[in-house]
Amino acid sequence: MIIVKGGVATAKGFLANGLAAGIKKSGRPDLVLLYSEGPCAAAAAFTTNSFQASPVKISRAHMANATHRAIIANSGNANCANGKSGDRDAAIVVERLAAALGVGKRTVLTASTGIIGHDLPVKKIEKKIPELVLGLAADGGTRFAKAILTTDTVKKEMAVKVRLGKTVVTIGGACKGVGMIHPEMTVSKHATHLSFITTDAAISKKMLEAALQEAIEDSFNMISVDGDMSTNDTCFVLANGYAGNGKIASKNKDYRLFTDALKFLAKEMARMLARDGEGATKLVEIEVAGAKNKADAVKVARKVSTSNLLKCCIYGEDPNWGRVVASCGASGVAFDSGKVDVYFGDKKAVSNGGRIGSYDKEEVRKLFKKDEIRIKIDLKSGKHKATAWTCDFSEKYVKINAEYST
Amino acid sequence: MIIVKGGVATAKGFLANGLAAGIKKSGRPDLVLLYSEGPCAAAAAFTTNSFQASPVKISRAHMANATHRAIIANSGNANCANGKSGDRDAAIVVERLAAALGVGKRTVLTASTGIIGHDLPVKKIEKKIPELVLGLAADGGTRFAKAILTTDTVKKEMAVKVRLGKTVVTIGGACKGVGMIHPEMTVSKHATHLSFITTDAAISKKMLEAALQEAIEDSFNMISVDGDMSTNDTCFVLANGYAGNGKIASKNKDYRLFTDALKFLAKEMARMLARDGEGATKLVEIEVAGAKNKADAVKVARKVSTSNLLKCCIYGEDPNWGRVVASCGASGVAFDSGKVDVYFGDKKAVSNGGRIGSYDKEEVRKLFKKDEIRIKIDLKSGKHKATAWTCDFSEKYVKINAEYST
Repeated sequence: MIIVKGGVATAKGFLANGLAAGIKKSGRPDLVLLYSEGPCAAAAAFTTNSFQASPVKISRAHMANATHRAIIANSGNANCANGKSGDRDAAIVVERLAAALGVGKRTVLTASTGIIGHDLPVKKIEKKIPELVLGLAADGGTRFAKAILTTDTVKKEMAVKVRLGKTVVTIGGACKGVGMIHPEMTVSKHATHLSFITTDAAISKKMLEAALQEAIEDSFNMISVDGDMSTNDTCFVLANGYAGNGKIASKNKDYRLFTDALKFLAKEMARMLARDGEGATKLVEIEVAGAKNKADAVKVARKVSTSNLLKCCIYGEDPNWGRVVASCGASGVAFDSGKVDVYFGDKKAVSNGGRIGSYDKEEVRKLFKKDEIRIKIDLKSGKHKATAWTCDFSEKYVKINAEYST
Repeated sequence: MIIVKGGVATAKGFLANGLAAGIKKSGRPDLVLLYSEGPCAAAAAFTTNSFQASPVKISRAHMANATHRAIIANSGNANCANGKSGDRDAAIVVERLAAALGVGKRTVLTASTGIIGHDLPVKKIEKKIPELVLGLAADGGTRFAKAILTTDTVKKEMAVKVRLGKTVVTIGGACKGVGMIHPEMTVSKHATHLSFITTDAAISKKMLEAALQEAIEDSFNMISVDGDMSTNDTCFVLANGYAGNGKIASKNKDYRLFTDALKFLAKEMARMLARDGEGATKLVEIEVAGAKNKADAVKVARKVSTSNLLKCCIYGEDPNWGRVVASCGASGVAFDSGKVDVYFGDKKAVSNGGRIGSYDKEEVRKLFKKDEIRIKIDLKSGKHKATAWTCDFSEKYVKINAEYST
């Protein structure tokens, strides 16, 4: 597997576009389209929030279709909690796009991100659909990646190539979302982070869903910016088979190679999101090892990654390990606190649940000045691991979110 | 029931003191003592955190004793995760105090609050014990209330009187804790908020424990400042029987009167803590109604009370109800999102899961300028209720906690 420059339109047969439709007050790009020249197997993961945005509802319904051709998405408006008019607005956008592309409406998926409870400006979107379609291009991936952003400070796209037998397939993607980030998504059930992944690999819908479930578990579902789960989280993967590899229809060697590449891409995209978390100055990686089972490891890693106190002291470049152990202990997971070790980078800070004499806070403080902090917690109770990603917590997060809708 | 001026030493037979022992670098008061002239029935609730501070461990063991006489507590150091030397230090403090008071060491309880992972300065404490004992006084409650504070900006104490038959009993208390506040305590099991309650009511230990369990459920266990559960949370109640009422030994009418007064006191103390949350400018009350059962109501109220996004927009005085519904939906409680109503104060903002046309954001914004904000969520799925308290989230919280230990 190699990393290549690219994004959602790097795999063969995919075209993309992004433009400004006037949804955002700022006038920045806010409407995107992703299109495959041929039918795709699709897999999707949606938020498990009880409040589901209208585009999530419609995409979930459309996932029952065998194949898909396009995804239309907007930033600047979540189209959530808008009642029946919200559902109708999302349906109109999908129908108009399907008509413009000449594809069945159930082959179109959709996603939205932005403020909750404001009417989607459907007329503005409708007016821009012809331009959106006409501008579709193989080099439109970056326009797409830019137009899905909200409070993000950088565009997030990447692509990889992996050899399956004699064929090289490409997987590329773009994502956004740096606030209201604590996804808990499940495939074909429910996932405001948005991520869009395309591949020219030939793979059955069933295997694509299995691959996506594996990929989100150790990536998007392990990031947290603020502990707030969105109503709009969505992750789509489209596979059009244009690479011409032998179709993956079982969990064979090619499935493993493809899925490992997809997992890598998803993990890197998830890290991009955490690194760009609202107000963030640092990426924080929390590895939990020695858990009795995977679920326990995930629970501890997720709990520590949402500790406001820990995230504030990381912002303050203060290696205060007390906040790590307090948060582990609050996870609800049963473990022997007298066995727990904690490391900051490679430096051991806690041994068997207590501080160690040789802990040199000033030395560790140097590690905290870097823009990526690694914390490892070894529960020493088993063999299972999990890694979560978050960011530090700065005054800027408060400022961004105190002023968001006004 | 009437509210009277007072605190931990207002009930008959209780004396208190607080002074500076040099545990805090600032030189502010940091060591307190509460003493009953006669033996007390005691009940306690401790943190459920897997990491338990040394004073929590020792107090938990001492709760097995039939009666208690005194509580010694310090601020400025949590004595947590200090290994065996931490346990030994806590034991030394208790033993020295017991000797100075001439009481059995198992009648002494203890609590600590402050930074985790630093040695308790036992010598400094030992040196101050004689002065601490000599200064015990019926008017020492306020000295006590001041010396237990850490990042708190105001002392928190109150007292009530309630008539049981022909006898008037007094219940008084003091508490502290405005960061690492998300208690989940259970009586005689595990509870850095600290609260100390005294009463001159005659009540059996068993009934006192039952009363305390009722009281913490709707008070301390329903507040959150930052979602971070402490290793040191402790709530003590001492009852010395000096009021001379007929001893409460069953859940009779007097039990109900006493417990209702205790619940009132605990709720008001919990509100004081939330209002003084680190960096807080507003108290936020979140009432959930219409839940299928109490556990669901508690789960939704607790989830909404920990939403960083909601707390930021309250700080920004921005009535963004989208963050309320997103957080309800993330609670994991099953309800029909299409039935949910949300009120800010008395103004309805959401009806049946969607915004309402008559919602006047500018009018509601005026409510958000007050220093107490009420949010009501009606799930319309049942008859159960719960109320949680939190505060808004300001840049000051980040500042306080980025600089805490350095």
